[in-house]
Amino acid sequence: MASVDGYSWTPNEGLKAGIPCIGTVEPQTNIDNGSSHAYDVIVVGAGYCGLTASRDSSVAGLKVLLLEGRDRIGGRSWSSDIGGYPFEMGGTWIHWGQAHVWREIMRYQLQDEIKVSYDFSKGRNQYVQASSHGTQAFSHEEEEALTDSGLRKFFNKDGQYGKWVMPFPHSAAFTPEALTYDNMSAADRLLEIKDSLTPSERLSVETVILTWSGGTLDTVSFLEALHWWALGDYSYEGCVNRLAKYKFKRGQSAFAKLFFQEGLATSNLSYAFRSPVANVKDMENGVTVTTDNGQQYRARKMISTVPLNVLNTISFDPPLLRGKKAAVNTGHVNQIIKVHAEVRDKDLRSYTGISYPHNRLFTGFGDGTTEAGNTHIVSFGGQHNHFHPEEDIHQTTNALQGLVPMNIERLVFHNWSKDEFDKGGWYCLSH
Amino acid sequence: MASVDGYSWTPNEGLKAGIPCIGTVEPQTNIDNGSSHAYDVIVVGAGYCGLTASRDSSVAGLKVLLLEGRDRIGGRSWSSDIGGYPFEMGGTWIHWGQAHVWREIMRYQLQDEIKVSYDFSKGRNQYVQASSHGTQAFSHEEEEALTDSGLRKFFNKDGQYGKWVMPFPHSAAFTPEALTYDNMSAADRLLEIKDSLTPSERLSVETVILTWSGGTLDTVSFLEALHWWALGDYSYEGCVNRLAKYKFKRGQSAFAKLFFQEGLATSNLSYAFRSPVANVKDMENGVTVTTDNGQQYRARKMISTVPLNVLNTISFDPPLLRGKKAAVNTGHVNQIIKVHAEVRDKDLRSYTGISYPHNRLFTGFGDGTTEAGNTHIVSFGGQHNHFHPEEDIHQTTNALQGLVPMNIERLVFHNWSKDEFDKGGWYCLSH
Repeated sequence: MASVDGYSWTPNEGLKAGIPCIGTVEPQTNIDNGSSHAYDVIVVGAGYCGLTASRDSSVAGLKVLLLEGRDRIGGRSWSSDIGGYPFEMGGTWIHWGQAHVWREIMRYQLQDEIKVSYDFSKGRNQYVQASSHGTQAFSHEEEEALTDSGLRKFFNKDGQYGKWVMPFPHSAAFTPEALTYDNMSAADRLLEIKDSLTPSERLSVETVILTWSGGTLDTVSFLEALHWWALGDYSYEGCVNRLAKYKFKRGQSAFAKLFFQEGLATSNLSYAFRSPVANVKDMENGVTVTTDNGQQYRARKMISTVPLNVLNTISFDPPLLRGKKAAVNTGHVNQIIKVHAEVRDKDLRSYTGISYPHNRLFTGFGDGTTEAGNTHIVSFGGQHNHFHPEEDIHQTTNALQGLVPMNIERLVFHNWSKDEFDKGGWYCLSH
Repeated sequence: MASVDGYSWTPNEGLKAGIPCIGTVEPQTNIDNGSSHAYDVIVVGAGYCGLTASRDSSVAGLKVLLLEGRDRIGGRSWSSDIGGYPFEMGGTWIHWGQAHVWREIMRYQLQDEIKVSYDFSKGRNQYVQASSHGTQAFSHEEEEALTDSGLRKFFNKDGQYGKWVMPFPHSAAFTPEALTYDNMSAADRLLEIKDSLTPSERLSVETVILTWSGGTLDTVSFLEALHWWALGDYSYEGCVNRLAKYKFKRGQSAFAKLFFQEGLATSNLSYAFRSPVANVKDMENGVTVTTDNGQQYRARKMISTVPLNVLNTISFDPPLLRGKKAAVNTGHVNQIIKVHAEVRDKDLRSYTGISYPHNRLFTGFGDGTTEAGNTHIVSFGGQHNHFHPEEDIHQTTNALQGLVPMNIERLVFHNWSKDEFDKGGWYCLSH
């Protein structure tokens, strides 16, 4: 069933809004709007956070209502259902170093349903740096060595590659030293080490930080970048393993469905999709949640999983705490762009590369082979040279060709910046 | 409250059986044995596995009976409650790379209740190798470098340090190449690389494998050792991080109590401690579980978390499947010995070392500072030169002195080999 989310484009069919997705829910609600049932808990948002909260609450015997603005589950992680090959429209990669995710993967016995994005055995087996000074090709071993070397210099402000200043990556209780890094942007840190990076290291480091953050070097906090590095076990290989290597054979939406179905199996889970929340009133005797179309729901408690950049579209009574409100007003800086290209060039399966700082899509790589035997290239842009891929397809294909020449048969993407339920990518802190 | 498990010894008080532990449960049951209640599920074993199963089942609304042979929760992970300092009698170290454990740590918000075992800043800041050829001291940087170098040679049978032959550490679907390694012992592999290891590397590699396995080099499967290495992210640093670096400030038993208390809070959890199971009869209309003292309990389902080496003490009707029975009869080879010493020598806080192959405790290190300001040394032995620490305290203190001279104020240990509910340490596969 097609979601209204996402776009696809082919030379023959042109641009089409809406993409088939197994996470689309039909019918869009299982409740009778005439009734005025009081729930134990209303969960707002059907991404992994909301799916987990609604599943665990309904398994625990609570009467749960799940409200979601979209027509599908999964939030910022969802996969297409195009020709049997899942293009990942948002969050993609998983790893046993992601503890919460891995626990769920083992729980649903999906540990053997994982494949590796890369296949460094075919054709143009290179890391290509296209910059304003020309193009240079490296082996993937050289890619890893120069990127790791550059990132170590970047993160080695404490003389221990970040391990001293951020010894517990999962703790929110940052050391005082780490907190001072929040006043510093990635660009500030690059300035400090400008004489120690080789030109190739600098290109790699800058594009890695832009890909992690979806921001610009001027906006993203050095603390935030260091946090990713620490969560990636303080090495480039550790980061790649956790961030961009392993993915579900059958796509994120197949995973998300398991959470939803387990909740439904309890008979305690009610849901209403296409039901964006407009306001939340929390009184002594419970919470009243009103959707955009005026429908009201009541519960003892509410769990909000609404992303930071759209939390200000909901009015809360009593209002959010001052600190929370300040965070909402600041927002986060991630405006990541992710464009998939299905291309006829089999020799690009082993390609990785960057095109920076001039190109609108600054990094990309061979991410799979489609059922038709074509190569799947995934590419990223962000706030740096930001654009809207659906507005000018010629510009979008040019940005792909700017990475490496390719014969495009299909484009697939989701414009997260214009998405009314996200207004950006994953959370990324500004300095 | 004291558990009957474990031993302590001081020069003044001599040897005492039983150790105070906050995981001891009093009263030992919350059920009326006169009643013949039928449960939804009986969980056998109150280690983490059984605690999790009984908690999750009772939270899901099932009526649960937890049966445990001991007088305490925690199974093979439990901590003493001696003078405010927790000695870890069994499983100790935790890390965010242990996905299931970390998920629970975050769930109970204990991510800031963790400390590092090591303090490499004090006094005798050395790695000491005592062997039949004399004693040699290294810095801890040298320790890591030579151990990593040795282990890389040991595990590099596939030319990719194990990453090629075991790419998914959490999968039970081993590659055919990895499965051939199950016919090989650690000693077999050491023979293959005997000319490439330096004497110091060999000592480190052998004692690391003995500490991971609790077996002997002749018994432990090379596949099993490789599995640990893969789970440790294919590096010595990765293994140390996951296996022997981070522990709970307040001990494992404080963690285990949270699982048990959450289950109890549902009012769905019944329990009976000091209730070893003698036989299990699984009929069409449910399961009947009979304890050693003849008490019978009925349920729709049973979950057994009984360790492999004692599973043959329970009779099952119908009998266990043939493959399972074969595994039970083979058993596992881990006969780890763990002895804690509280010593007056403050300068040993930064000590690590081995004494091998002659010494009964082949490895040890400074693991903390007690409330009294003494150094806590933890030491390990196993099937290699096996002994029972409580049988001859003089022999035990000699084995500690054989690591490094120390002034012992207290010993604390649990004899896992004689433990009727484990008959060994953690699961370790023979070849």
